[in-house]
Formats: sequence, structure tokens, C-alpha cells
Amino acid sequence: MLPPRVVLGTAYYPEYLPRDVPDRVAIDLDLMVAAGITAIRAGESVWSTWEPRDGVFDLDWIRPVLDGAAARGIGVVLGTPTYAVPPWLQRAHPEIAAERRTGEPVPWGVRQEVDYHQAAFQFHAERVVRRIVERHRDHPAVIGYQVDNEPGLLLPHNESTFQAFVARLRKEYGDVGTLNEAWGLTYWSHRLSDWSELWRPDGNSTPSYHLAWRRFQAERTTDFIGWQADLVRELRRPEQFVTTCLAYDRAAVADVPLSATLDVAAGNLYVHVQEGLQRPPRPSRFEPGWIGRGVADLYLAADRVYGSRGEPFLITETNATSIGGSHLNQPPYDGQLRQLAWAMVSRGARMVQYWHWHSIHHGAETFWGGILGHGLEPGRVYDEIAAIGAEFAEAGASVTDLRPDVDVAIVWSTESDWALQFQPPLAHPGGVPDKSSYRTIVTAFHTGVLDAGLRPGVVPVEHLGNDPAALLSRYPALVVPALYIASDAVLELLVGYAQAGGHLVIGPRTGYADPEARARAEVAPGRLRSAAGVHYLEYENLLDPQPVTGLDGHATRWAERLIVDDAEVLASFEHPGGGSRPVVTTKAFGDGRVTVVATVPDASLARAVYSRVGSPIWNGLPESVTALSAVNPAGERLWFVHNWSGSPVSACVADRRLELGPRDVRVVREERA
Amino acid sequence: MLPPRVVLGTAYYPEYLPRDVPDRVAIDLDLMVAAGITAIRAGESVWSTWEPRDGVFDLDWIRPVLDGAAARGIGVVLGTPTYAVPPWLQRAHPEIAAERRTGEPVPWGVRQEVDYHQAAFQFHAERVVRRIVERHRDHPAVIGYQVDNEPGLLLPHNESTFQAFVARLRKEYGDVGTLNEAWGLTYWSHRLSDWSELWRPDGNSTPSYHLAWRRFQAERTTDFIGWQADLVRELRRPEQFVTTCLAYDRAAVADVPLSATLDVAAGNLYVHVQEGLQRPPRPSRFEPGWIGRGVADLYLAADRVYGSRGEPFLITETNATSIGGSHLNQPPYDGQLRQLAWAMVSRGARMVQYWHWHSIHHGAETFWGGILGHGLEPGRVYDEIAAIGAEFAEAGASVTDLRPDVDVAIVWSTESDWALQFQPPLAHPGGVPDKSSYRTIVTAFHTGVLDAGLRPGVVPVEHLGNDPAALLSRYPALVVPALYIASDAVLELLVGYAQAGGHLVIGPRTGYADPEARARAEVAPGRLRSAAGVHYLEYENLLDPQPVTGLDGHATRWAERLIVDDAEVLASFEHPGGGSRPVVTTKAFGDGRVTVVATVPDASLARAVYSRVGSPIWNGLPESVTALSAVNPAGERLWFVHNWSGSPVSACVADRRLELGPRDVRVVREERA
Amino acid sequence: MLPPRVVLGTAYYPEYLPRDVPDRVAIDLDLMVAAGITAIRAGESVWSTWEPRDGVFDLDWIRPVLDGAAARGIGVVLGTPTYAVPPWLQRAHPEIAAERRTGEPVPWGVRQEVDYHQAAFQFHAERVVRRIVERHRDHPAVIGYQVDNEPGLLLPHNESTFQAFVARLRKEYGDVGTLNEAWGLTYWSHRLSDWSELWRPDGNSTPSYHLAWRRFQAERTTDFIGWQADLVRELRRPEQFVTTCLAYDRAAVADVPLSATLDVAAGNLYVHVQEGLQRPPRPSRFEPGWIGRGVADLYLAADRVYGSRGEPFLITETNATSIGGSHLNQPPYDGQLRQLAWAMVSRGARMVQYWHWHSIHHGAETFWGGILGHGLEPGRVYDEIAAIGAEFAEAGASVTDLRPDVDVAIVWSTESDWALQFQPPLAHPGGVPDKSSYRTIVTAFHTGVLDAGLRPGVVPVEHLGNDPAALLSRYPALVVPALYIASDAVLELLVGYAQAGGHLVIGPRTGYADPEARARAEVAPGRLRSAAGVHYLEYENLLDPQPVTGLDGHATRWAERLIVDDAEVLASFEHPGGGSRPVVTTKAFGDGRVTVVATVPDASLARAVYSRVGSPIWNGLPESVTALSAVNPAGERLWFVHNWSGSPVSACVADRRLELGPRDVRVVREERA
Repeated sequence: MLPPRVVLGTAYYPEYLPRDVPDRVAIDLDLMVAAGITAIRAGESVWSTWEPRDGVFDLDWIRPVLDGAAARGIGVVLGTPTYAVPPWLQRAHPEIAAERRTGEPVPWGVRQEVDYHQAAFQFHAERVVRRIVERHRDHPAVIGYQVDNEPGLLLPHNESTFQAFVARLRKEYGDVGTLNEAWGLTYWSHRLSDWSELWRPDGNSTPSYHLAWRRFQAERTTDFIGWQADLVRELRRPEQFVTTCLAYDRAAVADVPLSATLDVAAGNLYVHVQEGLQRPPRPSRFEPGWIGRGVADLYLAADRVYGSRGEPFLITETNATSIGGSHLNQPPYDGQLRQLAWAMVSRGARMVQYWHWHSIHHGAETFWGGILGHGLEPGRVYDEIAAIGAEFAEAGASVTDLRPDVDVAIVWSTESDWALQFQPPLAHPGGVPDKSSYRTIVTAFHTGVLDAGLRPGVVPVEHLGNDPAALLSRYPALVVPALYIASDAVLELLVGYAQAGGHLVIGPRTGYADPEARARAEVAPGRLRSAAGVHYLEYENLLDPQPVTGLDGHATRWAERLIVDDAEVLASFEHPGGGSRPVVTTKAFGDGRVTVVATVPDASLARAVYSRVGSPIWNGLPESVTALSAVNPAGERLWFVHNWSGSPVSACVADRRLELGPRDVRVVREERA
Repeated sequence: MLPPRVVLGTAYYPEYLPRDVPDRVAIDLDLMVAAGITAIRAGESVWSTWEPRDGVFDLDWIRPVLDGAAARGIGVVLGTPTYAVPPWLQRAHPEIAAERRTGEPVPWGVRQEVDYHQAAFQFHAERVVRRIVERHRDHPAVIGYQVDNEPGLLLPHNESTFQAFVARLRKEYGDVGTLNEAWGLTYWSHRLSDWSELWRPDGNSTPSYHLAWRRFQAERTTDFIGWQADLVRELRRPEQFVTTCLAYDRAAVADVPLSATLDVAAGNLYVHVQEGLQRPPRPSRFEPGWIGRGVADLYLAADRVYGSRGEPFLITETNATSIGGSHLNQPPYDGQLRQLAWAMVSRGARMVQYWHWHSIHHGAETFWGGILGHGLEPGRVYDEIAAIGAEFAEAGASVTDLRPDVDVAIVWSTESDWALQFQPPLAHPGGVPDKSSYRTIVTAFHTGVLDAGLRPGVVPVEHLGNDPAALLSRYPALVVPALYIASDAVLELLVGYAQAGGHLVIGPRTGYADPEARARAEVAPGRLRSAAGVHYLEYENLLDPQPVTGLDGHATRWAERLIVDDAEVLASFEHPGGGSRPVVTTKAFGDGRVTVVATVPDASLARAVYSRVGSPIWNGLPESVTALSAVNPAGERLWFVHNWSGSPVSACVADRRLELGPRDVRVVREERA
Repeated sequence: MLPPRVVLGTAYYPEYLPRDVPDRVAIDLDLMVAAGITAIRAGESVWSTWEPRDGVFDLDWIRPVLDGAAARGIGVVLGTPTYAVPPWLQRAHPEIAAERRTGEPVPWGVRQEVDYHQAAFQFHAERVVRRIVERHRDHPAVIGYQVDNEPGLLLPHNESTFQAFVARLRKEYGDVGTLNEAWGLTYWSHRLSDWSELWRPDGNSTPSYHLAWRRFQAERTTDFIGWQADLVRELRRPEQFVTTCLAYDRAAVADVPLSATLDVAAGNLYVHVQEGLQRPPRPSRFEPGWIGRGVADLYLAADRVYGSRGEPFLITETNATSIGGSHLNQPPYDGQLRQLAWAMVSRGARMVQYWHWHSIHHGAETFWGGILGHGLEPGRVYDEIAAIGAEFAEAGASVTDLRPDVDVAIVWSTESDWALQFQPPLAHPGGVPDKSSYRTIVTAFHTGVLDAGLRPGVVPVEHLGNDPAALLSRYPALVVPALYIASDAVLELLVGYAQAGGHLVIGPRTGYADPEARARAEVAPGRLRSAAGVHYLEYENLLDPQPVTGLDGHATRWAERLIVDDAEVLASFEHPGGGSRPVVTTKAFGDGRVTVVATVPDASLARAVYSRVGSPIWNGLPESVTALSAVNPAGERLWFVHNWSGSPVSACVADRRLELGPRDVRVVREERA
């Protein structure tokens, strides 16, 4: 459905321009053509324009855009506007407002204030979606659809949603006795005698309940997107695709099941640029959040989108320039947009779409910069994007539908993230819970792969499969950091993977809890113990980084007190309370190996661990350079070589000597793949 | 209406004393006379004493105070008690409680909990004000009235207030289509089809809405104060004045229109003393807030009161000793009260009134210190105030009704402050929005004037007038930092001012948005571009201060990426992403000059910029000394020379050599004005 | 009622174990016996197990535990389950949920969500308590009862509770005029004309109101515990004791009156271990809170439990290993559990009971570690507790019912803590109120006792008595830091104490307010002035520590501006605003002495002050060693010598040379007591 080249795109909202600005559609589309932009996203946020009053539709305002696009060979991804309900609907049906806490509806005035499963919303959403798609599906410009936008922002507490949760539990557990047992409700007198007694989530302190609630909410989001996708599929032309655009950090999103309802995975990928993209990295100046911090985060984010369906994907939004609120203004340095674009392509991106064409002159996102700024004149950002457009055009199909090469795959577990948000193992200084514990731990392990000169990948736990040999054929090494929520089956698969010849790296907290978020009543790491050759009864937070011996680097923030059964100790630290404590061990197991990293490694330690896991693929490259590879459908291996520093460097990759300028990127075809 | 000398005053609340303290009215008034205190404020916070039950009045409790004051020649400013409603009224009319958010009334128990426009409040407020004024207007002690007290604390969200907001919009915009366009409501599906669909402010994310809401709320405060002032004017003797006391940081205050309803402007001016008043200044140890931080802030605050009506004014409250909550205890160093008093007089203060006579023994402000402490014995603070009283008496009319000399005037825009509170351009470390962005930027520019040895002033944008020549005659140089909300007319006036010969200094963000808080759809700085000789398409936050070349100092926190059309570059910095960036430019324009400062200058850079704007008037003075001047009605120029350090210094001002002790101040008459 | 030896105990909840874990009661109890554990607490948190449905009881589930315990000579403290109401009761009687603010009930899902005085709760609580006690009182294993658990978490704002508060005030003050006067309600128009006009606590800003509200809430908790204790007493066998377990930091707890309703005082005592127990101490890495920070805090906490009734006591909960939330994981270093156990015994602990036997596999406290971890296998922690058990067994009666020797007693005032939470005198950097001001000040004075080599004690103000000579016979020196709320009688007692020969040390804020939380209308320190020989009119916060002369150390955070009447100045500092300021003075008074410390002393200054108060008892000991003593009922004096460092030391105590290992403790009987 997508053209045989990487699509350069942008969201385009001419309807937002102040009326006193002369019509610019032709000017804008011409500028896009000149920049090599081949697709636009349109129409997804203006329900009140599509349907200004209940049942009164104005479907043709978008025709000039569609016609202009078609005339220039620009494809249009038509959005459904369900993420921003019109004022008339809010007013007529106040009950559709999501309640953030029971009885506390989100006040109107932003967007995404809705509980998707309210009947009045569903009725109107279906109607407007049908009208829009029916009217425009046959327009030659329309290449696909985006349903809704960044769904899953809220965890609605509305009565009907809560009752659906109870019904869901009832279906799963059958009777309250089973639930009492599964969730451990004897504790603190929480045993239910009837389903009607289940407390609401507002005051919940039970981890099992929380995990069930998060799963339920993510299912609701998946159901909603799946329902819309089916609706659109009913109407679309067959060559048109259906997707959404996912913000992966949304509270109510499980990307794997959600993406399964789409034709292609699509993610929004924003990163802190400027010094944030420097390598070697320095500590970020920004709090963790939805904006990626550093080059490794960029690859992690892109690989998560790849991982959602295990195949090439769309980047539906990414930085053109400054992103976020009015107080965040970090336009990229020269060259960084090129670096980002090629980095995404290298992970399998079929589309790189900027949000958005021009900065908006009003509204919440006034200072989220577009390719054109408020002055609507092309400048430095436009020029750099045009250069990308030219490169994409030149590269053509050869860089399309890539499959990244992976030396070391990180296992991602959304459920573990949820569980550790509720019960974080790490603390900020002073003893404040660190709700980003999961991401912090995963990031430490993921970044280390790159630091060790290896090619990282991400595999969601849902896609591990159940065949150790198959898994081994995909990944020579597998890292499972903080896989707190793990079924017996998954743990056994991991053991089987090592036995079959894989190198399994086990990070902290892995396998500690069961799928009900209960700590397992067995000596940790339980089912992994004999393969690992270590066990532990105790664990602790490290207030200071502890230098290790045996390998370079430090143990930080967490240490399990390993007792070695039959593993080799690779690294230990001197405990402040006395005694030497192993924190990295390894054991040959079956045809493979199990390495345990019982701490959050700092960059040096992570690098040292991975230098035991694989031979660096870019040994000898300057520190500022990364070289990742991917294979295209023709079987050619392409190397993407980035110089993340502000100084020129030379690097030898795939037997080629490359001269890279400041913040440069080069794509090189390997002679013999 | 005021006596021909600066009034030294204090708020006096003998009614607060515990009943077991023997009557002190005579003792207190005698102590006041001995200290040169010539006026007191009384009665404004005790509605439940004036009217203990609905319709039952006790109006004569204050007679001993009035009689005692009259007997001693002390004037009384009688307060109306509307800012603190009595319990019986709260209980009978709970609907008068302001709602901080829709449906969330402020709980009773403090004061200023009321939505002024509730009918039950208005009825009772009018009745009690009439009774008090009618009863006491003829008392010879009464020289004036203070209506209400620090109005505008809250932004009431009550239903009737919200409906008044809708009605106000309806009147202004006529139909929703016009509003949709003016506010850009196509964005995120916010277009209204009917007035009844307007969302409430609770969830609002639209900047135009926010600005309209703030304007509306400030108008409500102005209406309320104007209504009370008119009520009192109906009853007062003609020689009595009517004022209020303004806290300038209140959320619902626009000082210029509000002060227009009064006979004289009046402000409450609190500053951090001790090391906070040192010069050269060091970074404040306190968060920004309603307490001024540093000498420059003191002048800024006083000049804002002057600016409210463009004429001499009252300081209705100021530090006697420690101010604020129980945890803030910073009594002034010896000499600092004198320094503050003369500083205020130098800016045109007609009254310096301390809050309050004695510390209170109970209630929220127990640790807000009085001239006398809880022990009710005169001490160091009393003695220093008595010294001020003696000096005021000696100076007499010569220091009364002064008009400050201004070398460089800062343009103040309350609307820009509101808009940048909602969309702050600056961030705190870590990426947290800095809601004080407007004040931070203005303060950087204002402080620099003093640092450069020039005489600063403040002119509210409402008082710029519309005649460039007239404006030039008032101010040789005009600084417009962060004038984000600016009409075309104001921008044209500024251009005209430069053309006519003024030196216009343009700070960051100036002219970026229109009066609807929309970013202008034109290349910045829009209408100022050709006069400035520069333009920009991009801007950014600076995470670190950047040293500039060309001038001393650093660019901090913000930089517009200036592209020079035909200006001279005065200062540039090396951008961390490469390249040299101009941040200060200047251009001769017409008979004047336009200087652009596209950053938040640090103290050195601001000083360096201003050294290009004017010749220092106190060149050669010790760093700890300021010398500001003002002209009295007799046309004499007085110099106010402060030594803000703890060491004695000599200084030569107005051809006089002065020996200044530690934390000293001297007033010198210039021989030939 | 307790056996003639220190009881080693643990809370035991086999009912929490997942059902798939094979029955462990026999295994667990055997392990306990092997560890010397002689008592367990059981059954207190599982009302929904005792009474799964309204009126349907299942009282025998605990029989295997009781029988197994009896068979092994383990005593059982049977808990009443009223702190965790079952879901059926929550649902049937939603009105029993405590309202944190008026109209905002605490959502269900944790425990302790109840307003104890709701009739529906009281009815059901009484019924279940009666059933449990009646069924099991005759079981030979049951040695006593714990009623409820850590009561007083919340300050319920429910209507009936608020009306009870009004009724309480009405009873105390008789008429509103008296209340208006007592609370100073003239201020800000708060005068009531009728009881019905009293504002609710939600918006209160009146300190007198706040103090009355806190007193009332604490009385409610005392009433509730007293009611339950009486109920159990009605039913128990005479040799069984009744207690509760107190968390001393609960908002609605006054430990002295509450403990008077019990047979024995019982407290939960948690401390930060690891480096937190090092001496010499370093600054804590954790925020202040319910977990003690440092060795001195440990003694302060234990002495507060002793102080509650002025006699030996139970420690009903203490760290076995990591405590608190999932993010706090600090298992003790080797030896620290022994150190803690003996430290508690040295202060009079009759029982040391660990919370809890095994870590729980689900629920809010999953990571609050037990003696056994989730793996349910004995390990390092179990082994160390078993060593303690062996030592307790060996020591037998000789270490039971100890009365600590006290050189310097700190006076504790819960009411002052409440008042200074509402009006904190100290600020955090930046000017943020420090709500821990009371504890901070008391801690500074208390820690200093230990640092000076003296034996500290704590005496609650309620137990000072009214006889100066008797008080002197108990304590040679008495320290009253931050005794902000003080009656005339107490102040006179303190003066009498010094006159009689005691050494009275007066800290900052002492005697400043009266029992209505009103600042006294007299020159501070009022009734203490002539005994102290100093007075002050001013006070201030110190932004930086100020080095003093005369004694070692610094004045920090606060200084009263002492004016010396007839005292000797021991220490002064140079004020940043000029001049030398006395901060420590002393005066011989009667047969004793009064020392004033008008600041928060740092560790050095506190030590220096106390070196003037008494001769060190452990002069010459290594810095890491403490030596405290107590006398047993046989009149023997025992010395408890701790080495709080990780290195071995020798120390000479009570004429014995002791070799102490790392983190060691030794108990030595003094030859001639």
C-alpha cells in the first residue's frame, strides 16, 4: 500500500491559519514538492469543522488540499477526528467525559478528554468517521487512514467502565474466592464476599488489582482502535492502509495487541536534540518523559515501533524543530534532522513524517515548531528537510522495508513497566520512589549495547514466541532486564533459549513476580536459578555507585545479594557493610550461557558486560560514531554510519573509509551481504 | 487632600489585643506622636465587629481611636471591611464563596474568600460601608478612606461569574463565528456553534481564552473597587480621599484601570531586607514572589505604583520588621528601614505606612512583625522609625509630591505577564516551565539600568499614549522587554518614538503576539523589523549562559536567532551547535536608534547595553551606592544617595562630597536644578 | 503479665500465604523456637477472614496457630482487627469512611480509612472484638491483646465528628464570646455570633482553632482505644494484658493519655540502618519521617515509649530487614539487628517484636521484609535474630524491666509539635516552611546529649508533675527546646526546678505561646525571664550557620536577639548585619542554674553546651562508642556498650576493658551499683 520508497511526510493543517492569511494551499504544496515531501496527514483534529453541529456535516472543506495533493503526486493520510470531540457533543453528552478519579470528570478544553466506551461518543464517532471516509475514500490522493491520534492518554474511572472492569474480572476469575486467592486479599482484610464489593481504583493499594486495571485499560484502548480500524476497513479502497499514531508512553497502551489491529505499526518519536544527541553521551539536562534522551533512546524508541509488529513501520510524528510546551525551545543543530531521519530509516521506518508543516498561531501548541515557523517562510529547517527529501529520492527502494541486524536484543515488558510504576524498586535521592524504575533499568542495559559497539534490538515479551530454537535464530543474545512480571512459560522459554545456545543476560528483578504481580514464593531467581547458577534471598538499594572489580565500572542503585551456586563471578564490589559481593556472574549452560547482572550497571559496567556477550562490530571507530546495519528486501546489507559529534572524523565501516563531517550520516552498502 | 509633607503612618488595630492587656490606645498614640507618625489606617478587617449580627451594628467601638488620634493630630484612614466577611454572612449565604475551580468553593477560615459580584455580598457590603462612612465621615480625624484591601486574590469560577464572562465575550465578539476566528478555535476541534458551548476555564488550554479570562477577572476587580469608591465618594467630606491598597501581584488586578477609579494610587510594597538589600547584589536566597528581591526590585515596585496613575502615590503597607509567615523572620539590619523609607519617598511616595503598629498575638499573621513586638514595648525598630519620623518632619514639603527623573523607562505590560504565565518562554532546570518568565525578563532589563548608573523608571503600556513626540519628551530611552502582547498601534508608536529621536531597546519576545495572544503570522519582530534592522525565524532556550563577544557578559536562557538586515552587531556568542550568533544589535533609525537585545542579559551584559544607551549619571560612585533624583513641585531637584553596604563610603553626588555610613541614605538638594 | 525475661517476638500471618504453599505453621513455629522467639502477634488485620460476611463468623481459622504456639511455649498476642474493615462493611456503610476534607471520603483500598466514631463502625467493631476475644480468651497460648493497630492516622472531617468538635468547644468555652476572646477572633472578622457559625477545619487559618482541633482529634483516638481496651478487659483472663501498637508520628495521637488507657505502653520503632546507624553520625540520606535517622533518634524513639507511661514498655514492631515501600531496600549490616535489640532493652523494652515473620507475596507491603524473605528460607537475618534470642535467653530476668539512668532529660511536648507544624518557625532553603521544625529543634538538642557523653532521657510535659523537688530528684538537668505551647503552671514549675537546684536548659521558642497557641503579650521569655537573666524583643532565621565564639560550633537557622539582664554570656556570634549577638547564656539561679540556648545548635555547639551541663560519663571512649546504663529491679546497674562503627575498638566502661567487634554491643553489669 505504501510506495516503494521511504515516504517523507508532514502533518498539514491549512485550516488552522488565521483567516487574514491569504490562501496558501498551493504555495505550501509546491514547497513540499520542492522539499521531496511525498505524503501529508490531514484532517484528524477538527471534528467541529467536519461536523459543526450535531448531524450537520461540512465534508468538503478539505477538497482543495486533496486536489492540490493529488495534482502534485502527494499522498494523503486522512485522519479520523475522534480524539477531539466538538463542543456541541461535550455539552449534549457531558457523561462522555472521562473521569480521572471516580466522580471527577476531566474538564473540557484540551482534547482526549473522553471515555471511548461511552455510548454517546461511540454513536457520534462512528457517524462522523463513516461520513468522512465515505466522502473521500475515492479521492486519488488518499493513500491511507489514521484512526484517532495518540490514544490511551487516560485511565477512565467512569461508572460504566468500572463495571466493565468488574465484568472482565468476573469472566476471568469466575468467583470472588478465586479472585481473593489470586490477589492475596486476605491481607489487610480485602477479601470480597461478592463482586459488588470490589473497591474502586481510586484508593487501591493492591498490586494485583493495579496490574489488572492497567491491562483492562489497555484492552479498552485496543478495542477502541480496533473498532475504528474495522470501521474504516469496511469502507476504504483495498490499496489504502489503516493505522493510528501511537505515543508509546501513554498510560493505557499496550502497543503489541493494539498494533495487531492495524495494517502497519505507527509511532510518534520525539527526542531531545542539540547536545542531547551528542556521543559519547553526557547526562541529560531534562527529566525523563515522552521525549527521548540521547542516541540510544532514539534507537530504543524506533525499535519499539519495529517490535510492535516485528516489521517495518511508520514514524507518524517526529521533531521538525522545537517540540513540546512554550518553555521548551531546542531547535536541532545543523545536520541533526538528517541524522534522525536516516536513523529511523535504518530501523525499518517506511515513513518519516514531521509534525508539522507550519507552527500554529494559537492554541496549546503554539510553540511546537513546524517546518515553517509562524512567519510562514522557509528557512534553515525547511532547507535541511529538503536535503533529506533529495536523499530519500535518490536512495529510492534500496532503503525501504529494512530489517535491522541485531546482535543483542532487549526484551521489553509493558506489564513489568506498569507493575514497577506501582511498586518501584528504585528511589530518587532522599528516598522518593522513582516511578521510572523500569525504564531506567532497561535504558541502562539498552544503552550499554551501543556503547559496546554492538547492534541493539528490542523484542516485546509478547513476540518471544514459544520455540527456543526459533528465538535463538533471531537473536544471538537476549537481555531481560527488570522482567518483573513473567509467566512460568516465558521463564522456561528463556532457560530453553540459553540451553539451545543463546546467551541470556538476566538483569535485576527478572522473574521475581508472577503474572498476578505477586512475589513468587520461591528462592529468587526461581525458575532461572539453576540455569543462572546463582540465587539470592536479599536485595538492596545502593545509595552510592559502587566500583566493581573484575570488570570496569560501577554497580548503581540496586544490588541483589547473589549467592553463587555454580557460576563464575565476573564482577564484585566491596559492600559498605563489609564483604565482597558478586554482581555479575556467568555460567555456561547447555549450548549457551547465562550471565546475571544483579544491579543497574553504569555505562562502563554495561559496556564491559556486553564486551563478554559479543565482539564489537565497530571496534576502532571514533567514540562519537555509531554504525548500525540492516538488510533490505533485496538482501543487501546497508550500514548507517553516524558521527554524533560536532567535529569531523574518519571511520572505516564495511571496509570503506568514510570521512564524516560534523553531525553527519552516511549510508553504505556492504559489498558482500 | 493629603498634608503638605510625607505622611508617616501605620496600620493600627487595638481591637485585636487580648482583653487582659490593659487599654493602650492612649499609650500607643502617644508613642506614635513621639515617633512622628501622623496617620493611621484603622478598621478595615473587622466587619464582624462593626456588624456582629445581620443588621446589628456596633459602629462606635472605634471612637476612642478616632478621638485619640484627633486629639493628637493624627489622621485616620478609615478602612471598609469588605475583604473579610463575617461568619454570619458566610453561613447565611454560602453562595458568595468564590469557586477556585468550578464547583469548588474556597473554604471559609481565612479572608478574601468571596466572589465580589454575588448579590448577597454586594447587598451586605454596601450596607456596612454606608453605615461606617455615614457614622464617621464627620469625625475630624478622618482624612480618607481605604476601600477593601488587596483585592483580586482569586479568579472566581462561580456560575454567575462565568455567565458574565460569556456575556462579556458576546458583547465583544458579537457572534461565535467571530470568536472562533479570533481565538483560532478550529484547532483541536474547539469551534463553537453556540455561546452556550463555551467550555469553562478549568480545563482550558487556549491562550486567547486565558487572556480574555484574565482581562475579564481584572475588570471585575476594577468594577468592584470602583463601585465601592463611588459609594464612599457619595458620602465623604470633599477633603477626604478614597483609595485602596493594592498588592500588585494579585491574579485579578490590572493596576492602571483600577487606580483610575481612586483619588490616589496606593500600593503595598514589601521587600526582602538584610543581605537582600545589599549592593552589589548577590543572588537572592528566596524564591520570587510577592516580596521584592533586591534594591532594583524595590524601585521597580515603587515605580509601578507611580506608574499606575503616573503621579505621586501612597505606600499603604511596607515592612516594619519580619514579614510573611511564621517561617520567615528577617528583621532589617540597622539603617535599612531608613533606606527603604527614603527610597520610596524618592519615587514619589506621599505616605509611608507600616504594617503594622504591633505584632498580633493570634491568627494567621502572628509572626508578621509590628513596630512593637508581642511584648508591646518599643525597641530597636520603633527607634529607627522614630528617626525617620524626625527626618520627614524636618524635610517637610520639600520632599513631597516628587516626580522622579528617568533616564531609561521600562515598559510594563500586565497582559504580557498574564500571557507568559500561561505560555512561559523560559524553563527552570530540568525543563520545568518558569511561570515567572515575564518578571524574570523584565527584572533582568530593569536591574541593568541601575547597574549602569542610570535612573530607571516604569511606564505601563496603557500610559504610553499615542504621540511619539510626547513620549520622547518624557523618556529619552524606552525599553520594551517581553512585550509579548502588543497591538499594532503600540508597535507603531514604538517605531515612531525611535524615529522621533528616542532610543528604543527591544527585548526578547516583544511584539511576537497580538492582543488575542496569537503568534503573529509574520516574520518576527514583525512591525518592528525594519526599524530594528534584524529579523528571526527561530529562537531557543539556552541551557547554559553563553559568553558574548563585543560587549561584556552573557546571554542567558533565551536567544532569538537574529538575521541582520541592516543593523550593527554589538554582541554575539558562539553557538554550541556551531556558528556565531548576534544577540545585541543596534541601528540608527530616523532621529533615534533601535537596539535589539535578543536574549535575557546577565547583569554584565545588561549594564554594557545600557552604557550604550546613556551616560552614567553616577559614574565614579562606589559600587554599593545608588544616586537617584526627583524634582519637587517647587522645581528643585533632590538627590537620594544610598550606601547599600555595611561599610562606610564617600561619594560625590551633585557636586557634593558625602560621607555615608553603613546602610546610610542622604538627601541632597541640587544647587541649580 | 509478661514473663520475667525480655520477650523476643514477631508478627505472624500464615493466613497471608498463597494457597499453593504447603501448610507451614509447624515449620514456622519450629523455626521460631529454634531462634528463641517466645511470642507472636496474630490475627489483627483480617476482619474479613474473621467475619467474611455481615454477622457470619469464622473464628477458628487461627486455632492451628494458637495450638501450635501453646505446644511450643510461644505466647500469642491476639490482635483485634478493627483497623481494616471488610469490604462488606465498607459497602453497606459508606458513611464510616473518614473524610480527609469535608465531603471527601478517603477512598477504600488501603486500611485505616475509617472515622472510628461512626455508629455503624462501632457496632460492628464491638461485635467482632467480642466474638474473637470470647472465643479465644481461654486458649492457653493467649498472653495478651493488641487492640487496633497504629491508630490515629487521619483527622476525620465527617459531619458528626465536626459537630462533636463544636460540642466539645461549647463544653469548654460555654459561649461564643468566650471563644471569640480565647482565639482572638476579632482578627480578620472571625467573631462568631453563634456556635453554628464555626467554620470547618478545611480553610482554617487560626492557630488556636488548629490546636483545639488537633487536641480534639487526639482525644477521639484515645477514646476509641480506651473503649476497645475496656471492652477486651471485660472479657479477658486477668493475667492477660491489653495494649495497642502506637506509631508515634500519627497525626491524631497524644501518646501519654492514650497509653494511660492500656496496661502497658507499646510502640513501633523503625530506624534507617546501614550507614544510618554509624557513629559519629553523618547527615542522613533520607528525608525526616516515621523512620528514625541515626542512633540518637533510636534512643529518642525508645525513650518516648518509656515516657508514655514512665515505665518499661513493649516494642511491638521493629525492622527485621528492609522496611517501608518497594523503593526502600536497606537490609541491616551484620550485627545491626543485635545492636538495635539491645539498645531497646537498655531503655526498658520488655518485648522486641519484629514485623514480621515472612515477607508477604502480595499487597501494599510486598517489599517490607520479614525475618524470612519471599523464598521462605532462613538466611542471614534469621540467623542474627536467633543469636539475639540466645542472648536474651541467657540474660533472662536480669535485663528485664530496666529503668534507664538519665543525666539530661528532654521535655517533649506533642502540643508544641502540633502548633509548630501549623506555624513553623524554620524554613527550608528558598523560604519554604519546615513543618518538621519542632522535631528538628528537639533532635538538635537531644542528639547533643549523646554527643557530649551523657545519658539522655525524654520526659513528656504531661509527666513533669507539679513538684520542683520531685522533678529534680528524677533529673539533674532538664532541657526544654521549642516548648512553644506552655501553661503558666509548667513555666513556673521549670523556674522552681532551677531554683531547687536543677540545671534548666531553655531552647528557642520556649514559653512563647500560651495553651491557646497565642503569642504571649509580654516580653519574651516571659515567665522565664528573671530566672534566665535575659530577654528578647526580636528573633530571626539564620540563612547560614554562624560560627560562635566562647564555645565551639555554630548557631543555625534561628536566633533570638538576646538582651542580657544578669546572665553570663557563654557564646556569641557576629551578626551579618553588624554587632555581636549572645546566643548561649547561663545564670546561677536559686540552688540551680538556667542556661539559655537561643538558637538551633549544631552538633558541636550542642555538645559544648552539654559539656557545661554535666561531666561526660564515657569520657575517653572512642567516638564510635556509646555507653548507656540502666538499673534492673534487683538494683543492679547494667551498661550497654555499642560500637557503631565497622571497625573493632576497645573501650573501658564501668572499670572493664571491652574489646568490641565491628557493629558490636556488650552488656556489662557494674560491680557496685
